[in-house]
Amino acid sequence: MIKLDFTGATPFLEVGDLIPEAQVQKAAQDLYTGNGIGSKFTGWVDLPETYDRSEFKRIKSAAAEIKSESDALLVVGIGGSYLGARAAIELLRSPNYNLITKPTPNIYFVGNNLSAKHLSEIMHLLRDKNFSLNVISKSGETTEPAIAFRVLKNMMERRYGDVGARSRTYVTTDKNRGALKQMAEREGFPTFSIPDTIGGRYSVLTAAGLLPMTVAGVDIDRVMAGAYDAMKTYTEEHSMKNPVWQYAAMRQALYRKGKSIEVLACYEPAFRFMAEWWKQLYGESEGKDGGGIFPASVELTADLHSMGQYIQEGARTLMETVVSFDTFRRDIEVPLMAEDLDGLNYLAGRGMEHINAVAKRATMEAHIAGGVPTMELSLPDMDETAFGWLVYFFQLACGISGYIQGVNPFDQPGVEAYKKNMFQMLGKPGY
Amino acid sequence: MIKLDFTGATPFLEVGDLIPEAQVQKAAQDLYTGNGIGSKFTGWVDLPETYDRSEFKRIKSAAAEIKSESDALLVVGIGGSYLGARAAIELLRSPNYNLITKPTPNIYFVGNNLSAKHLSEIMHLLRDKNFSLNVISKSGETTEPAIAFRVLKNMMERRYGDVGARSRTYVTTDKNRGALKQMAEREGFPTFSIPDTIGGRYSVLTAAGLLPMTVAGVDIDRVMAGAYDAMKTYTEEHSMKNPVWQYAAMRQALYRKGKSIEVLACYEPAFRFMAEWWKQLYGESEGKDGGGIFPASVELTADLHSMGQYIQEGARTLMETVVSFDTFRRDIEVPLMAEDLDGLNYLAGRGMEHINAVAKRATMEAHIAGGVPTMELSLPDMDETAFGWLVYFFQLACGISGYIQGVNPFDQPGVEAYKKNMFQMLGKPGY
Repeated sequence: MIKLDFTGATPFLEVGDLIPEAQVQKAAQDLYTGNGIGSKFTGWVDLPETYDRSEFKRIKSAAAEIKSESDALLVVGIGGSYLGARAAIELLRSPNYNLITKPTPNIYFVGNNLSAKHLSEIMHLLRDKNFSLNVISKSGETTEPAIAFRVLKNMMERRYGDVGARSRTYVTTDKNRGALKQMAEREGFPTFSIPDTIGGRYSVLTAAGLLPMTVAGVDIDRVMAGAYDAMKTYTEEHSMKNPVWQYAAMRQALYRKGKSIEVLACYEPAFRFMAEWWKQLYGESEGKDGGGIFPASVELTADLHSMGQYIQEGARTLMETVVSFDTFRRDIEVPLMAEDLDGLNYLAGRGMEHINAVAKRATMEAHIAGGVPTMELSLPDMDETAFGWLVYFFQLACGISGYIQGVNPFDQPGVEAYKKNMFQMLGKPGY
Repeated sequence: MIKLDFTGATPFLEVGDLIPEAQVQKAAQDLYTGNGIGSKFTGWVDLPETYDRSEFKRIKSAAAEIKSESDALLVVGIGGSYLGARAAIELLRSPNYNLITKPTPNIYFVGNNLSAKHLSEIMHLLRDKNFSLNVISKSGETTEPAIAFRVLKNMMERRYGDVGARSRTYVTTDKNRGALKQMAEREGFPTFSIPDTIGGRYSVLTAAGLLPMTVAGVDIDRVMAGAYDAMKTYTEEHSMKNPVWQYAAMRQALYRKGKSIEVLACYEPAFRFMAEWWKQLYGESEGKDGGGIFPASVELTADLHSMGQYIQEGARTLMETVVSFDTFRRDIEVPLMAEDLDGLNYLAGRGMEHINAVAKRATMEAHIAGGVPTMELSLPDMDETAFGWLVYFFQLACGISGYIQGVNPFDQPGVEAYKKNMFQMLGKPGY
């Protein structure tokens, strides 16, 4: 399903630079057997096999209920409770999802910032729409979503009354603990769970991602089937023939050679938030102890006319990873023009997707020639199956890569620093 | 108007690290007097004073015409012919501009990629809408916009006939030369110009940015007035008291100390594409000769839950520049809840914007304590005047910063590399 081509990276490494297979093997084994650091949070490794089928069914019926009762779904969440669902919906449905005509509700992501301008604008958009709400928070105490939830809960109660508001509120949170869990039990909200063993950035294949995705019309059976096949394929191959091992080992080897920034590139604008999801996954997993590859992303070909100059000739501290999709559903032919003023007739009759693919190849060659080690991950189609595969590929590679780097890829101690300051400044009890 | 606070950066520099005032002075002088490298392209320096008033009037009447004849405007352009207008519209109108009810047409940006999926989706969105088109390209031969223009020109001719299509097509291109200029003369399109002396990434205050902005309801008189005041303020202060000099000198000093990545941060989601515009401006101006600060951006507080961990504890190669707006128009109060399950009652009655401002201060302190030199640019309000100031501030600082670095901040030789490969692979005559 996923082809990894790293021939654009190997010229930048000598044999001695490669991560020894034994080290990659140990990283993978530690991950699978739970002997590695942070292993309390490796529940995502076998999730595609072990996930709760009855909850999966409840996700589908909740989604059906939301579709029948509402024109819009508000998704209240931040970080791992936000980026995965948004990435999936933009990639599999459209970055213009809320603009296109469709049988499914609009989706608005809120509670991922503290901007009153943003929240009030979304509330205004809902003034004449029926809406439901899915609040996603493990603890229920994260400031951004908690504030948004308070504000929107009031709005719902004013509009639908207590009972109506209750019936339109869906909670995704910890199975047993936490403020949101308590509130859900008290008020009888339908509740879905994020397993204790899965951290936010690894949670897109839990209810955190699956409920909003289903409401938007994403086929989550195919997503999970893709993830399952990826799990089987990548956890059963214990050698450097495993593309996950290759990606993890190559990026760590390049990092040791001074390639300290990884640019994730895709030639489809719909991929923008998939890259944001990837940036959280890798940045939060590896950016610690004063090290880690800095994750960045570009949307191509657009950014060839903005970041392209830097990638081609800037500081040679970059590596590039290109994600590409081979099948094109809706192509557009370049029309012939009687007078060839723009000099484009040499392309007449050719499809944009073909030209896009050539642009990709041409750009990869230029970047490699310019001194940027480049890897390419190719998938057949931009669909649910590919999404499931890609998510599992990147998550597994991230765990292994983090272990090779020697960090805990499953914690995020640094996230507390600003919170501690903020709670003190805001006078939160106990700070 | 703009306050620059660099007290969060100075602790990371010793006196000997600072760029000598004489060097900054020379960079500025070279820029103003046209003695610097690339000075053919410094027409933007006095543009707020010298811009063509009659064309400015024509932009307004063209915008009025577009509003009266169309529900949507297609903006065909890439790089500097795309990011500036999009940045302005998202910042000054809304990132949800096409979703909100408004008296102005929807704006769709096309021709900034080669994705058939993207273009066909936009065309589908227009199936039952009247639309006009603004194609923006200096040469008229850039592949992405040229292809989109051919496709959309056909679509318009089918829908409106040759005459109708012609009357709905607005061209922004070189004053005298180029394919698009010729075509415009041949077909009699209303034409607006990008001065020869202004490169794409410095062109947002030309017709390239101003026409789409005006159609979207942005007050370009206030934009230009802001830019003019900024020009007066910043080109007349010849000392290190000049915030533009300070910003340029600080980031170059930090760069020499190994801070090789600059993260631009803002606490308003509407700023996302302003950051993309900034990334092109600095990345394309300074990313050459194997050097340059790598420009990255975060949307806060959202990305505190994704990139926040890296910024706090990752490789200490980062500097951060925060852009903040002090005035809040639409605030939202945190409601009180009888039972304080989420523990948020300590915030009850406080405005989100206040909390957002505290989060910003708390985060800056945490990042500085974590080893990230941090500067803050504060503006009173997120409005047209501030936009004009900000654009001029960043452009002037970029020219000076590039000269301090010792590069030509006005060329982009590296952008040709992938094009050359692509034209060869596509069999373009002459390649």
